[in-house]
Amino acid sequence: MNRTLIKGLNSKIGETVKLQGWVHRLRKLGKIAFLILREHSGLVQCVVNTREVDIKGLRLESVVEITGTVVKNDENVEILAENIRLISEVKEELPFEINKKDIEVNLDTILNHRVLSLRHQSLNSIFKIQACLTQGFIEFLKVEGFTQIFTPKIVSEGAEGGTELFELKYFEKKAYLAQSPQFYKQMMVGAGYERVFETAHVYRAEKHNTNRHLNEYVSLDLEMGFIEDEKDIMMLETRLLKSMLHKLKNECADELNTLEAKLPEIGEEIPSIPLPEAIKILNNKYGKELDIDIDPEGEKLIYEHVKKEYGSEFVFLTHYPMEKRPMYTMPADGGLTHSFDLIFRGLEITTGGQRIHNFDMLKKSIESKGLNSEKFSDYLEVFKYGMPPHGGLAIGLERLTAQLIGLGNVREAALFPRDRDRITP
Amino acid sequence: MNRTLIKGLNSKIGETVKLQGWVHRLRKLGKIAFLILREHSGLVQCVVNTREVDIKGLRLESVVEITGTVVKNDENVEILAENIRLISEVKEELPFEINKKDIEVNLDTILNHRVLSLRHQSLNSIFKIQACLTQGFIEFLKVEGFTQIFTPKIVSEGAEGGTELFELKYFEKKAYLAQSPQFYKQMMVGAGYERVFETAHVYRAEKHNTNRHLNEYVSLDLEMGFIEDEKDIMMLETRLLKSMLHKLKNECADELNTLEAKLPEIGEEIPSIPLPEAIKILNNKYGKELDIDIDPEGEKLIYEHVKKEYGSEFVFLTHYPMEKRPMYTMPADGGLTHSFDLIFRGLEITTGGQRIHNFDMLKKSIESKGLNSEKFSDYLEVFKYGMPPHGGLAIGLERLTAQLIGLGNVREAALFPRDRDRITP
Repeated sequence: MNRTLIKGLNSKIGETVKLQGWVHRLRKLGKIAFLILREHSGLVQCVVNTREVDIKGLRLESVVEITGTVVKNDENVEILAENIRLISEVKEELPFEINKKDIEVNLDTILNHRVLSLRHQSLNSIFKIQACLTQGFIEFLKVEGFTQIFTPKIVSEGAEGGTELFELKYFEKKAYLAQSPQFYKQMMVGAGYERVFETAHVYRAEKHNTNRHLNEYVSLDLEMGFIEDEKDIMMLETRLLKSMLHKLKNECADELNTLEAKLPEIGEEIPSIPLPEAIKILNNKYGKELDIDIDPEGEKLIYEHVKKEYGSEFVFLTHYPMEKRPMYTMPADGGLTHSFDLIFRGLEITTGGQRIHNFDMLKKSIESKGLNSEKFSDYLEVFKYGMPPHGGLAIGLERLTAQLIGLGNVREAALFPRDRDRITP
Repeated sequence: MNRTLIKGLNSKIGETVKLQGWVHRLRKLGKIAFLILREHSGLVQCVVNTREVDIKGLRLESVVEITGTVVKNDENVEILAENIRLISEVKEELPFEINKKDIEVNLDTILNHRVLSLRHQSLNSIFKIQACLTQGFIEFLKVEGFTQIFTPKIVSEGAEGGTELFELKYFEKKAYLAQSPQFYKQMMVGAGYERVFETAHVYRAEKHNTNRHLNEYVSLDLEMGFIEDEKDIMMLETRLLKSMLHKLKNECADELNTLEAKLPEIGEEIPSIPLPEAIKILNNKYGKELDIDIDPEGEKLIYEHVKKEYGSEFVFLTHYPMEKRPMYTMPADGGLTHSFDLIFRGLEITTGGQRIHNFDMLKKSIESKGLNSEKFSDYLEVFKYGMPPHGGLAIGLERLTAQLIGLGNVREAALFPRDRDRITP
């Protein structure tokens, strides 16, 4: 007999089925016991024989096979078990309970026992939502004519100017882990693919341990050629996010419900504020003193302002100053740039913008940042041979996931987070 | 006026359109010139004014915008240009020609100028095919109930026993680059996702420089729970490959044609030969002396044998000896294992099998390989708390791509290959 998935039981009333999964709950009532069976498609109550439970040594989290009849009990489907087989035993006491509504241990314990903690319904749901977001990203971009690429993570030079790089021994050479696929995705635009995306880890050797930083995180990157300016990228991101949220709503209703997550609405356009103006608003309205850049607290306040004024949970900040942006950023008038950040519920989840496509301008920009342009010769080559105007963006997948669900720490949205102190499990 | 893509011109006969792309070819015939424009969707001939070409300084690979009327010329569509704008100039002589049928430089030159070489039609097609294969993998597994995961590439311990690891300075700690997501994908099965996949780079510090090895390559990994044995994985791979090839045939006909690539057929089942039997066949038929494992030459010969006998370009080799397989491999009778390799056109493109799911057996297996099981405590934890029978596989994306197209060196199927000597561009 083939295994039946729990989600398919509704159409099998009266039939004998074989189920396989974990013992989620177990309540003995004299001769009979109620066993809730859990697998990836759902939960179902099985009415079993207490003696058999004892003989087989079933405990919470034992892996079992239950053969029985599907019956309707009020609104729910239930299994009248005829046979139970222990597939895989539990050898030790669980370090914490995973079948309650809330998991009542701190984040460190959760992460130390990451695999067990992921058996908890809410924590499990986080990564189904994350997978759905990733697939929403891929599917939307495919329709828009983007090509998926895999660019190297072992690199000879940093893309952002050489700080915060993890160093690697590569045979006789010194190498680094890529901070971003920035150079490579631009190069792939110039290689004629025009529109490319990547879903991969990037690495930042940032020393500070905050609840919004990871040293290894998933960057949803895209880059496209033949744009007018950064507004083309912002419009694309607006449509992209709408599409990803739409997919999430359709395919992850149960998971969103489990997590009590409320999806944001995106209107025709996401409000957009030039950074210098945002800084003025923050000063006038909240008495916040900022120079030319915004800080995490400022991002929270500008989100509150925008939410109140425009009813949007997203806001684009634009026109960042050149001195705060990497050397490949396309400059605009007054020392500003054709770049943007996207703030979602008070946290930056995207950085993007138009890039410089003119060779001489790019070379000058590299040097004006105090960098040696000769070290960037591999990157620069394509700019000599006809590089179209282009731009792109990167979405931090864990940050997007955390903000959507309302998690307080981005680590909760990383399967196996890597931070200042943690490289296990 | 919005940009029109070349692939959409057929439905715009008689209309004025704006095209953007690279100058692929240029032939002056007195007052008029024929300019072939190239962009990611195709090529089109534009009839332009020679004087304008000269004034604007157009060269091969210049990025241009051409406005003109779409006309039908015999079977083809053509543009009668009214206006040309130079968008991005070419500053230097191209290092080699990229508009001929074949690219007439050696692989090293191609890779040194990787971005330019990818503008060549055949080389460009390789990575459109690769993207299509990746998406075929993702789409098939999604329908089969698999969850996409991102597992860490910065790890504290190797999965295959500690050799061939790249070492990394991780703040005060020592870390390594992941050789495979093996442990993590198994752990995610045990975390309750049951079916998971990942499309990501893995890292092998192999010192030898062959035409089938890369030090960084894309591994298409999957793992699934509640299997009977390795045959479930082999059946899944058969259906998976069929689905990927079907998608390729439908979506990349032009690219396959450009590369003169012939797709293999897969019948109801892929032939399967136990390794000890394969070794006997190689001895009897080809006089090849092998001990208990097969070598690359043996893989080529067994492919020839299978192709002749069964008409298949794929063959599963099964029952590898335990001493040649990693410690997590499920043992079978006679010192053999429930594992397999898939050979495609003479090259191994997949390793897979059933894994040990019993804690005590796994601990013993680790120790029998001379490893310290305490170093694997993070991996082992989930096996104490109910681990279902499971198995999985990994497909080397560059190898699969190379074999499908008939490339002689796996580097040709890596965008920016990393090998013993190369970490640039």
